[in-house]
Amino acid sequence: MIKIAILGYGTIGSGVVEVLHTNRDSIAKRAGDGIEVKYILDLRDFPGDPMEDKVVHDYEIIANDPEIQVVVEAMGGVEPAYTFVKRALLSGKNVTTSNKALVAKHGAELIAIARKQSVNFLFEASVGGGIPIIRPLNSSLTADEIEEITGILNGTTNYMLTKMTFEGLEFDNVLKDAQSRGYAEADPTADIEGYDACRKIAILTSLVCGQQVDFEEIPTEGITNISATDMKYAKAMDRVIKLLATSKKTEDGYYAMVAPFMLSQQHPLYSVNDVFNAIFVHGNVLGDAMFYGSGAGKLPTASAVVADIVDIAKHLHKNILISWSSGKMNLVDCKKAKSQFFVRTSEKCEKITEVFGEVEYVEAPGVTGEIGFLTETMTEEAFEQKAGSLGSILQRIRVV
Amino acid sequence: MIKIAILGYGTIGSGVVEVLHTNRDSIAKRAGDGIEVKYILDLRDFPGDPMEDKVVHDYEIIANDPEIQVVVEAMGGVEPAYTFVKRALLSGKNVTTSNKALVAKHGAELIAIARKQSVNFLFEASVGGGIPIIRPLNSSLTADEIEEITGILNGTTNYMLTKMTFEGLEFDNVLKDAQSRGYAEADPTADIEGYDACRKIAILTSLVCGQQVDFEEIPTEGITNISATDMKYAKAMDRVIKLLATSKKTEDGYYAMVAPFMLSQQHPLYSVNDVFNAIFVHGNVLGDAMFYGSGAGKLPTASAVVADIVDIAKHLHKNILISWSSGKMNLVDCKKAKSQFFVRTSEKCEKITEVFGEVEYVEAPGVTGEIGFLTETMTEEAFEQKAGSLGSILQRIRVV
Repeated sequence: MIKIAILGYGTIGSGVVEVLHTNRDSIAKRAGDGIEVKYILDLRDFPGDPMEDKVVHDYEIIANDPEIQVVVEAMGGVEPAYTFVKRALLSGKNVTTSNKALVAKHGAELIAIARKQSVNFLFEASVGGGIPIIRPLNSSLTADEIEEITGILNGTTNYMLTKMTFEGLEFDNVLKDAQSRGYAEADPTADIEGYDACRKIAILTSLVCGQQVDFEEIPTEGITNISATDMKYAKAMDRVIKLLATSKKTEDGYYAMVAPFMLSQQHPLYSVNDVFNAIFVHGNVLGDAMFYGSGAGKLPTASAVVADIVDIAKHLHKNILISWSSGKMNLVDCKKAKSQFFVRTSEKCEKITEVFGEVEYVEAPGVTGEIGFLTETMTEEAFEQKAGSLGSILQRIRVV
Repeated sequence: MIKIAILGYGTIGSGVVEVLHTNRDSIAKRAGDGIEVKYILDLRDFPGDPMEDKVVHDYEIIANDPEIQVVVEAMGGVEPAYTFVKRALLSGKNVTTSNKALVAKHGAELIAIARKQSVNFLFEASVGGGIPIIRPLNSSLTADEIEEITGILNGTTNYMLTKMTFEGLEFDNVLKDAQSRGYAEADPTADIEGYDACRKIAILTSLVCGQQVDFEEIPTEGITNISATDMKYAKAMDRVIKLLATSKKTEDGYYAMVAPFMLSQQHPLYSVNDVFNAIFVHGNVLGDAMFYGSGAGKLPTASAVVADIVDIAKHLHKNILISWSSGKMNLVDCKKAKSQFFVRTSEKCEKITEVFGEVEYVEAPGVTGEIGFLTETMTEEAFEQKAGSLGSILQRIRVV
């Protein structure tokens, strides 16, 4: 019997308990041993809960119990998660976490400690919820140079953009709707400003390039300035607007970015709607691949955490190699990145032609008093310079 | 240096050589050691080929060379592949294969031999080409009971159906086009009759249920009777026709089937076009997930084979557990499976109502002299009985 401790009895922690209970027999078969929850660390008590007697309030109890082989970190946030996880690894315990903030900030260090201790630090649930992506990147796409990884990595904003696309609503209304459904938090900043997606693409890019990518260096735009008018233009072009987190390998190195994009129907992420997530990968020999599924939610996320526990059980005292060193990867300045841009302006056609040359005008039913157009493909730098010359820019969205 | 032998220097064998060459450094880093092709077994000579001096015509040379740690089987067909692979495993060599016929027929036995010998028999490329699906099923979706696995597993037929959907062509014309592009073979039977997809869903179902599923027992329909008229009806319903290979877990056990289906826009496989493949998975805790990519082709398939070689290199002398025993899984009779059916008939409405009760009629622009309708959801058995009573049935396609 493999004894585990769960840190945090919130949505994910309780989901892990539920998954371990629901699929007990098949999980034991695949892990080669039964999995038993010995402790749950939480500040609260849970009177009446079937796990009531497992709850402890002091991490020392877990840290000092040599029977505990796996620590499941499901608290969220960098501290005290970091301190607890590091201590667990240093004392020879395996760790799985769903905590993107922790992994983005300290992943390289924790992976190195796990390797030194011949244990494992796994984090499948930290990106894409239930979608297998970390393990496929680490153990399936090993024949390839990954040249692009682009994801819809935040379910909250994807739900909101889907709702805006199909129902013509304004941003503020769909935010309220998402909050009332529990998809968005009371303080929705991390989702709608793209910070959540930013940490996730930092993790994926680190895995792809094998070095530490600092999320603070990734240019990040959220969806707060996307309007019902933008959606009308998108629809007129048979496009949808999605918040993409993307990184690409160029001759000069990797660049990464989080921003809203207009996607054509041919794009593999075009039809990823509602709270679903998907990750598109382009490998130099594999070509295009995509992984799709539930990017959040109690049971899907817990499914990924428990899959980590099974993998740990199959690799006790044997470190699974993860190529993510603490050497820092300096990202290429995004100013060199090229895109086509969709622009809305109150300037006249003559001025647009003067600045941008020949452009493709877009008309959206019911939109008046402004002009929408598509530029040619150009660098961010060139666009910014032209946009400055144009004067009034009501909106600009990258097109892919 | 890990020395390997490749059996068969055709499309996939030469693709493996190319991938190992193109990504030599990153593959060596991930494998923890360099990979060197020592032999290529083929009946032919390849004068002028850079690998010319590696080519041997006698398998004995490979079988008797203790330096060879990995045998890459890329010959296709059951024999002599089976004999060669079995012998390699019995002599303690690892094997990776892209050969669905071999895996579907002898997978359980070869997996058992590998386990006994503490080596590995891996077959990622046998289903879905470059799409990681075997390894994710085996090592990522381990927390779940997989309740459904449904795939577009044959690129040739998907190309043909896509062409029929968008260009309104008849089956015979698109078959000729597929043959001229090298997507379909001179004898296209295995693809268009669904036999290829059948072997692949047998492999996936065996992995999901952990027992041997005999492909001969899977009811299999191809796409040879799909016509431009069917496509007109599908379009009128905003649906597309896809060849699906599907297996589902029911209370009575697993059933599996290969047949054309009409998919709604909400179906995750709706927009999988051209030669792409995709596999949809529903887990009892994960919910819906999908894996998409190149289902065939030289480099994508070779990418999956080389990923197997890397996995083997990381697990030398250590068997990776694959749950697929030789115990036979008796499939549930598909007669109990339930579907909605789309039907075309030359009978009158009165007769249709008499037999099927209330149905939903479908009109397709330009189609006259017949009636199209959608039945309620019913078992295959019930449908067959009613269809017998109706009399003339021009077509029936399951709807999902």
